[in-house]
Amino acid sequence: MNEGNVCMDRIRMPSLNNKIVMPELAAELITDGMTIGISGFTKSGDIKILPKALTERIHHKKFKINLLTGASVSDEIDSELTKAGIIARRMPYMSDPTLRKAINAGEVMYIDQHLSDVAELLCNNQIPTIDIAIIEATAITENGGIVPTTSVGNSASFVNNANKIIVEINLAQPDDLEGMHDIYIPTQRPARDPILVISPDSRIGTHYIPVDPEKIVAIVISNKRDSPIKLESSNVDTQAISNHVIEFFKHEVKIGRLSNCLNPLQSGVGAVANAVLRGFIDCPFYDLTMYSEVIQDSVFDLIDSEKLKFVSATAFSLTQEYWDRFLGNLKFYKKHMLLRPQEISNHPEVIRRLGLIAINTALEADIYGNVNSTHIGGTHIMNGIGGSGDFSRNAYLTIFITKSIVNNGNISSIVPMVSHVDHSEHDVDLLITEQGLADLRGLAPRERAKVVIENCAHPFYKDALNDYFYEALNRGGQTPQVLEKAFSWHRAFAQTGDMRKI
Amino acid sequence: MNEGNVCMDRIRMPSLNNKIVMPELAAELITDGMTIGISGFTKSGDIKILPKALTERIHHKKFKINLLTGASVSDEIDSELTKAGIIARRMPYMSDPTLRKAINAGEVMYIDQHLSDVAELLCNNQIPTIDIAIIEATAITENGGIVPTTSVGNSASFVNNANKIIVEINLAQPDDLEGMHDIYIPTQRPARDPILVISPDSRIGTHYIPVDPEKIVAIVISNKRDSPIKLESSNVDTQAISNHVIEFFKHEVKIGRLSNCLNPLQSGVGAVANAVLRGFIDCPFYDLTMYSEVIQDSVFDLIDSEKLKFVSATAFSLTQEYWDRFLGNLKFYKKHMLLRPQEISNHPEVIRRLGLIAINTALEADIYGNVNSTHIGGTHIMNGIGGSGDFSRNAYLTIFITKSIVNNGNISSIVPMVSHVDHSEHDVDLLITEQGLADLRGLAPRERAKVVIENCAHPFYKDALNDYFYEALNRGGQTPQVLEKAFSWHRAFAQTGDMRKI
Repeated sequence: MNEGNVCMDRIRMPSLNNKIVMPELAAELITDGMTIGISGFTKSGDIKILPKALTERIHHKKFKINLLTGASVSDEIDSELTKAGIIARRMPYMSDPTLRKAINAGEVMYIDQHLSDVAELLCNNQIPTIDIAIIEATAITENGGIVPTTSVGNSASFVNNANKIIVEINLAQPDDLEGMHDIYIPTQRPARDPILVISPDSRIGTHYIPVDPEKIVAIVISNKRDSPIKLESSNVDTQAISNHVIEFFKHEVKIGRLSNCLNPLQSGVGAVANAVLRGFIDCPFYDLTMYSEVIQDSVFDLIDSEKLKFVSATAFSLTQEYWDRFLGNLKFYKKHMLLRPQEISNHPEVIRRLGLIAINTALEADIYGNVNSTHIGGTHIMNGIGGSGDFSRNAYLTIFITKSIVNNGNISSIVPMVSHVDHSEHDVDLLITEQGLADLRGLAPRERAKVVIENCAHPFYKDALNDYFYEALNRGGQTPQVLEKAFSWHRAFAQTGDMRKI
Repeated sequence: MNEGNVCMDRIRMPSLNNKIVMPELAAELITDGMTIGISGFTKSGDIKILPKALTERIHHKKFKINLLTGASVSDEIDSELTKAGIIARRMPYMSDPTLRKAINAGEVMYIDQHLSDVAELLCNNQIPTIDIAIIEATAITENGGIVPTTSVGNSASFVNNANKIIVEINLAQPDDLEGMHDIYIPTQRPARDPILVISPDSRIGTHYIPVDPEKIVAIVISNKRDSPIKLESSNVDTQAISNHVIEFFKHEVKIGRLSNCLNPLQSGVGAVANAVLRGFIDCPFYDLTMYSEVIQDSVFDLIDSEKLKFVSATAFSLTQEYWDRFLGNLKFYKKHMLLRPQEISNHPEVIRRLGLIAINTALEADIYGNVNSTHIGGTHIMNGIGGSGDFSRNAYLTIFITKSIVNNGNISSIVPMVSHVDHSEHDVDLLITEQGLADLRGLAPRERAKVVIENCAHPFYKDALNDYFYEALNRGGQTPQVLEKAFSWHRAFAQTGDMRKI
């Protein structure tokens, strides 16, 4: 690396040049008990070099930190810092297996906040202040502003809130990322200004994160691409779910509820979500837009097929192939996308105003339409609630998708009662599995149960669900239940490995 | 009644005079299978004369309707129409014992929608159109606009959506109510304009509901005051809850999180809520404002004590004494309050922008901070979720209050696992009982459990809750549970009448 060039091209405020240090030195700024906010959201735009310096440092000096991120970050952060015993508390979304294990063992305290909420809590001082923010940057502007890389996440709010800032200038992140961010931080309440995003392509902020340069205490130089994600390929089940989604929208357009451009789409991440979005490639809709958290593989296919006009998000979540496609055609794709702080990508005000169609994945759902997004067996966390709560409560239409069975049919995703509730029946408009679609709008719980069992449950479990429902009906109530049997399926699985062996 | 005067004073569009009919005639417009939207929210501003005409009509001709309201309405509507077998479906909030019984028996299909959502579903045609809207009015303006009475609720959206409108001009509702409403209906999505309420006293609409006068098919004249509510008086427990709330805010102000004016307050209804609000009379805070659903007794005490500057709501919920106080000093109180459509009083955009402090009542809460607002024993509905979901997800601070025990201690309001989840742990910042306060902000579930048990549970149940929690800890997980025992307290109560007999 040529430090002279770095200074000229990437650090455009000359007075900051003397802040460039080796990672080991920057790591020494982090001490026991600190709250550290780092950039990164769904493994994009996270810091690349300081985590290693921290895990090396612990050999000389024991310390623990409270770690805040945008959302999930690379294994080298969550996994390695967990193994080194550095993380005392972690907030918000995560998806790393090592960290997950530590959380479920009670070794790391995990606070699973709605993704739009972290910045609010910080700016209201409702949670401890960020001692040091560590932010990956494409560049630092002439006035000291930080140009983010492939995610914005909570970076702008961390910078605002932090006492000190360390910047990682990542030379592997192309210059041309500059200009694709729109940084706006809501003003203080109770006298907050309206957030004037009126369509996904509204620009209301700056291209960089405004910073008091005095707060930048160190700059380190990295040169490493973002970690790609791995995705299961589409299969007959994800394709069936996608088909149900598209058929549903065709019907909504036909009866005049939506135009052929639909409303802006929001989508959760992962294999099923990608399959559903790809369903829009061969559909009669056009000029689609997205107002979502992440830009995933399928979004590039939608742009390339000229179905999708514009996508607003806070980060990328891409496989290697699509990272290459994106970065290889950055100037083209930049015209169709922008990245905002996650407080804006997930803001209730904007979600409600734009009338989003929110499509998220359920771990399990029950016959009344309650959804568990987070807890296996009601106790062990999988990834976290992410933005699903921000979107589901405030969207125009809230859709949850899931395969009706997993684990070779030993687990039914449709159960009598979910073992953990993240989204109550009040928030779930449609439930879709590969078996079919339950349109729950305007239905009472007893009606919801019938349509969920009939349309969404796998044949393996349909009779047992009906048995439960009819037994519950004998007990009466708005939401009939047999409380002593409500979790018997989960107990059967825990004891026998098969929910059918109740 | 002198019809000549009515026409001049109350119906200011002369061409509508010939629409005045006897209630029996207007009732004949309502036929089997219709969807009827009526005015009324927490028993204020509901229709007074047509319900009786409908229950009389059923003796001659059987019919059933789908009934939509703002929220709860007087017994003469929900109770009498239920007894007459007229209600097939009911939406959203209700609180009538007769209707409740019919709902829990499965005789009436009850759709418990968030209160801000009903108007959205209607304007998007996601639920069936209103065939006839029946709206209580103070007056009809020169251009045919309907001036509401003591609630706005869903009236404006019902009128917008309805094919036909019947107006009840209520001579018992004073002329001077005119001017205290601010009617604004959000524009259509996805190109909706920002809703420019920037403080509780922002006026963004008209004083009347704009109407196409052609849609007014009948006008009936009534002369009857709103039904007063009955309230239990404050006691040592409600006073203790109120004290905890006030002490909490003193602390928040002391450490600089809030100013002495706090943020705008939202409060649920009822005896406990009134006691909590009265706590603000003798407090060091000043120039308080409210952005809430309802104006209840205690709000008048706060205005009279000059603690409360302004209250925005959608309706009143008053005992007889306070109805008399309000209507006897209408011109004075009008300066301190306005009524909006419930879509605006409960709008996520405004709730988040103003940074509301939301205080609502829980039926039960669990050790992790999940809240049940609606279902007794997990199955039988009490009243409905009301606006608690609108406020709790989007507020600056979400507080749930409840007495730690009810039914002479045979029921603990703090349980291992709530039998029905309306508000998940993600949305509950503070849980307060007469025993104390659990500040759950920034805590992981295992930490939440400790502080909820220690601070909120009644001594009768503290050991048993700790036993459950420690047994659950042995099973591990982010949210430890013993699924087979999670509802054992509810089962014990069902079988023995005492939760302690597990």
